[in-house]
Amino acid sequence: MNRALASPEKALISQGNAPLRSLSFPRLSRYDETMKVTQTFIPTLREVPADAVIASHRLMFRAGLLRRLGNGLFAYLPLGLRSFRKVEKIIREEMDAIGCLEIKPSVVVPGELWKESGRWDSMGEALLKLKNRLGADFVMSPTAEEAFTAIVRDELSSYRQLPLSLYQINTKYRDEVRPRYGVMRGREFVMKDAYTFHANEESLDKSYQDMGRAYRRIFRRCGLSVIPVKADSGAMGGSGSEEFMVESEIGDNTLLLCKSCEYAANVEKAECKPDFSPPSSLDEAKTIAASTPPIEKIDTPEIKTIEELCSFLKADAKTFIKTLIYKAENVESENPSAEKNSAEAEKSSAGKFFAVCIRGDLDINETKLAAALKASEVSLASEADVLRLTNAPVGFAGPVGLKGIPVIADFSVSSINDGVCGALAKDLHYRHVAYGRDFEASMSADLRTVKAGDNCPLCGGELYEKKGNELGHIFKLGYKYTRAMNVSFLDENGKSHTPTMGCYGIGLDRTLASVIEEHHDDDGIIWPLSVAPYQVIVVPIKYDGAVKEAADKLSLELIREGIEVLLDDREERPGVKFKDADLIGIPYRVVIGDKNLAGENPKVEVKRRCEKESRLVDINTAVEDITEKIRAELYEFANS
Amino acid sequence: MNRALASPEKALISQGNAPLRSLSFPRLSRYDETMKVTQTFIPTLREVPADAVIASHRLMFRAGLLRRLGNGLFAYLPLGLRSFRKVEKIIREEMDAIGCLEIKPSVVVPGELWKESGRWDSMGEALLKLKNRLGADFVMSPTAEEAFTAIVRDELSSYRQLPLSLYQINTKYRDEVRPRYGVMRGREFVMKDAYTFHANEESLDKSYQDMGRAYRRIFRRCGLSVIPVKADSGAMGGSGSEEFMVESEIGDNTLLLCKSCEYAANVEKAECKPDFSPPSSLDEAKTIAASTPPIEKIDTPEIKTIEELCSFLKADAKTFIKTLIYKAENVESENPSAEKNSAEAEKSSAGKFFAVCIRGDLDINETKLAAALKASEVSLASEADVLRLTNAPVGFAGPVGLKGIPVIADFSVSSINDGVCGALAKDLHYRHVAYGRDFEASMSADLRTVKAGDNCPLCGGELYEKKGNELGHIFKLGYKYTRAMNVSFLDENGKSHTPTMGCYGIGLDRTLASVIEEHHDDDGIIWPLSVAPYQVIVVPIKYDGAVKEAADKLSLELIREGIEVLLDDREERPGVKFKDADLIGIPYRVVIGDKNLAGENPKVEVKRRCEKESRLVDINTAVEDITEKIRAELYEFANS
Repeated sequence: MNRALASPEKALISQGNAPLRSLSFPRLSRYDETMKVTQTFIPTLREVPADAVIASHRLMFRAGLLRRLGNGLFAYLPLGLRSFRKVEKIIREEMDAIGCLEIKPSVVVPGELWKESGRWDSMGEALLKLKNRLGADFVMSPTAEEAFTAIVRDELSSYRQLPLSLYQINTKYRDEVRPRYGVMRGREFVMKDAYTFHANEESLDKSYQDMGRAYRRIFRRCGLSVIPVKADSGAMGGSGSEEFMVESEIGDNTLLLCKSCEYAANVEKAECKPDFSPPSSLDEAKTIAASTPPIEKIDTPEIKTIEELCSFLKADAKTFIKTLIYKAENVESENPSAEKNSAEAEKSSAGKFFAVCIRGDLDINETKLAAALKASEVSLASEADVLRLTNAPVGFAGPVGLKGIPVIADFSVSSINDGVCGALAKDLHYRHVAYGRDFEASMSADLRTVKAGDNCPLCGGELYEKKGNELGHIFKLGYKYTRAMNVSFLDENGKSHTPTMGCYGIGLDRTLASVIEEHHDDDGIIWPLSVAPYQVIVVPIKYDGAVKEAADKLSLELIREGIEVLLDDREERPGVKFKDADLIGIPYRVVIGDKNLAGENPKVEVKRRCEKESRLVDINTAVEDITEKIRAELYEFANS
Repeated sequence: MNRALASPEKALISQGNAPLRSLSFPRLSRYDETMKVTQTFIPTLREVPADAVIASHRLMFRAGLLRRLGNGLFAYLPLGLRSFRKVEKIIREEMDAIGCLEIKPSVVVPGELWKESGRWDSMGEALLKLKNRLGADFVMSPTAEEAFTAIVRDELSSYRQLPLSLYQINTKYRDEVRPRYGVMRGREFVMKDAYTFHANEESLDKSYQDMGRAYRRIFRRCGLSVIPVKADSGAMGGSGSEEFMVESEIGDNTLLLCKSCEYAANVEKAECKPDFSPPSSLDEAKTIAASTPPIEKIDTPEIKTIEELCSFLKADAKTFIKTLIYKAENVESENPSAEKNSAEAEKSSAGKFFAVCIRGDLDINETKLAAALKASEVSLASEADVLRLTNAPVGFAGPVGLKGIPVIADFSVSSINDGVCGALAKDLHYRHVAYGRDFEASMSADLRTVKAGDNCPLCGGELYEKKGNELGHIFKLGYKYTRAMNVSFLDENGKSHTPTMGCYGIGLDRTLASVIEEHHDDDGIIWPLSVAPYQVIVVPIKYDGAVKEAADKLSLELIREGIEVLLDDREERPGVKFKDADLIGIPYRVVIGDKNLAGENPKVEVKRRCEKESRLVDINTAVEDITEKIRAELYEFANS
């Protein structure tokens, strides 16, 4: 036995200098057959499903990668699954490479864990809850903070066990009301989600940086151009949240990008360079206001919008103070310790109201507002509430003389020293309003919605907009789950602490679909080699006689070199085979026909899917030629 | 780029003669680090969970392979997942090798598919149904006949597409009322389930045989001794159902095995060689009965059991005709066409009653009875029903003179030509009862429960009993789903037909747990090399100085040879490390210590987990020595 083995296997393994970890040997010869089109299941379509409005959805159905089982529920067919597994493998390799450890919790998780974290109630209706026959509550996991935190809680005792970095690649479910765009927004999907646990911020930051680099490599290896979007500006030091976006006509997100530098941000969090010079202090504001004419009440009959007011007063919208009444839910108490211990923070159970001011030409960004107020949600107050709180109908709120609710101001408001605002009565406004003199804000913050044309917060360049879809997200979670679920460890001195957490997700289905979005033409998919279901498709013009023999031999030789080959052995016209080969998008096509085989120098035709022209290659060097090119390209993917 | 690559990688790939399909190259050097114990997550335990009554459950927890998330819900930790993935890989390779194609349907499946098949109602409470926020019905898949049939239905048109053989390895859920024994009977689990579709029985039989062989290879490669249990005797020609069992103290199944031949059967279906000679026809029975004394009614006061009757009459239980009244649910109509088209068969909605007779020393097998009656379920009639139907209390039923309900007889009854039975009145029995003369049966069938000591139906040898757990099942499903869900294809002549189906499952979690059941001792797991989480554990006595250097070097060299190495770099006493190494059961342990390293011929200690003795090996040949042994053993696993 030993001898039989010793020769080829051993030579094979030990001659290279390249590392070979996890090469599983020996291979079994019975697994060595060429995959033929008639022996697999690739139901290509001429017709496209009516609801398939984006290219990846259309092509995944047309190329036979995917079928529908229900609304937002799909089945990957053999070809689709091969590419899916390659994406999975790339992600797994990059997670393993940064020392993240794979585990596999159940998909169905006890509801009690979600009650502990609070997400049982706060997650909303996208969380699919279920009851089993004994009436116990369960959750079909959309993410797995609770499960991972529970596992770590039970095992963690000492700081020596930290940091701990765990991930899974597993089925998830989100109860989308309107699933669409194929697997781009499905109900069931597969996500890689990782969670890290740390004794301190520095350790969390290191893992966060490692993850960011791993994510960049993952997307690069998949052939994707992603836009990393930081939640807060890099200029302010360490970012705590980064989204990895791909440009998409049907993107959920609006991105703001700088024409001059790398700045990219989600509109929800985008900042810009101020186009005003705020006073450095309230005193300075008062000093400036000293030269402003006294505040004056004016009649503004039948005027409701800023635009109407502008033309009525013949003034720029930049001199107006727009004031909106907001209702905020679950606002944290003002107790400064609340910031440090959010789990125990008092919450006001009923909504709280705020008057929110911003310069007339700008819009309030509700995500920023909620963050500034530490509220779970903000929404415009009802007309009745506005009337009750401002003594005036909607349209006449203003900060001057407003009693009973706090005034929150965007930074832009503090530089207004001769402005216009509502006078808390129908058809009345104030003019010559000066911040600091006529009103103050209980809080100033960046609340503005950044738009195309605004200036980059980093370099001052012009910002522009794109629609984007999120493929991945890395996020410093902090103490939310470890506090709520009572996780602790002892430090060197035996003192108990709560670990801090990071979480990091990538949607696999969406990543695969995005590869197709980025790599296709009118004829079909153009797979990057790294995630192609097969690397080579061998197309005999007629699978018969000498052509069949040559096709079989070439295929087998390629397979022996480690190349993944699909052989189109169908009795179809060449045109049909070429059309299907283009549709399913295998990177290399080798056509074998009688004409090129004849003569002294038999040749085959080699064509890359991404190129227009084919080449004639000597049949005796074709295997080496193709293998070398594929190897070089894969090497580049893996090590760029 | 090409040149840098051309040398080592290429030499490596092309020099071997062995096939190398799906070797994914090039490897990345950054993935080449030794896995150290302090860098992974192996929370071994001294304590055992109180509910862990079987070895695999205890050891999966103690060795840090598994943790509990809820009742019947678990998380595989890194070490457990590595072994789990190896089982998965073995199954995938063997499925691929027989041309079965992997797909990935969603786990959550629309309820409407289950309504089409009828299993929405018939599956019982183990089926976890769910409603989403829009009120739509879904099923959390326990198996996937419906999903696969729906996919094939939509694509199938011509006989040329058949046979079609598809599988998935995916999450499943069964709403067990009493999950226990760890992953051996969990709620969520992973199953490989395959479904094949065929134009005719011969094609189905071929796939069924291929699957049977693949299953045998899978279990052999996992190091498992399985007992293949055929549902019907091989003697009767092609079997339509085969279960793969492992012996287990907590097995759900009772198996009957022959001491002399290969016969093995589940007690539910086990047959035996008759210990009687039945008449060949009713006429022959009548002829034999001619010499029996006339039937006679006798008083049997206060006698209820067969045993009491035996001693009262001083007769052998073999001369008694035991008669039990059964209620059967959903009995198919007697219409002979019903057998051919079960989906449309009429069913009696209310239960039907039957008098079931068997020889006094035997017991009725209710599974056989239900099958004979084509009923979904059978159960003993209530006392009230017995009184109403036999005009006597329980204990005095008999076939003689019984009106209004059909008499069903076990084959053993027809050879009774001078027997005793109840006389349909309290404290009265008949004697000198002869089959054919005094009563007839409307159906005779094999209804007996086979017991240890009965004779093998194949060779006549003695049968004995074992408890077993089912790991896999292959089954000729027939037309049940394809008819119910209207699947059809056109034959060569354009005529429409319904395809026939087979289904084939293996539980991965249970397979892994069974490996541990079969391979462990008091100190821990003894992994077979094929599914071990790592192949070698390197244990430096103290991870420091020259020992550390030698341990690092040896580990890296083994990894370069493709061996999976875990390095115990903890600052623990050697005894602790050895105990943990035994507990987690890595097949090869290499101990590196100062003493053996000193001197001219530095040595390391190599010990196999399954052997008592260790060997001292020259450190310079240790890598080659270990690699060769592992390679040889793996080769044997894969190709035996």
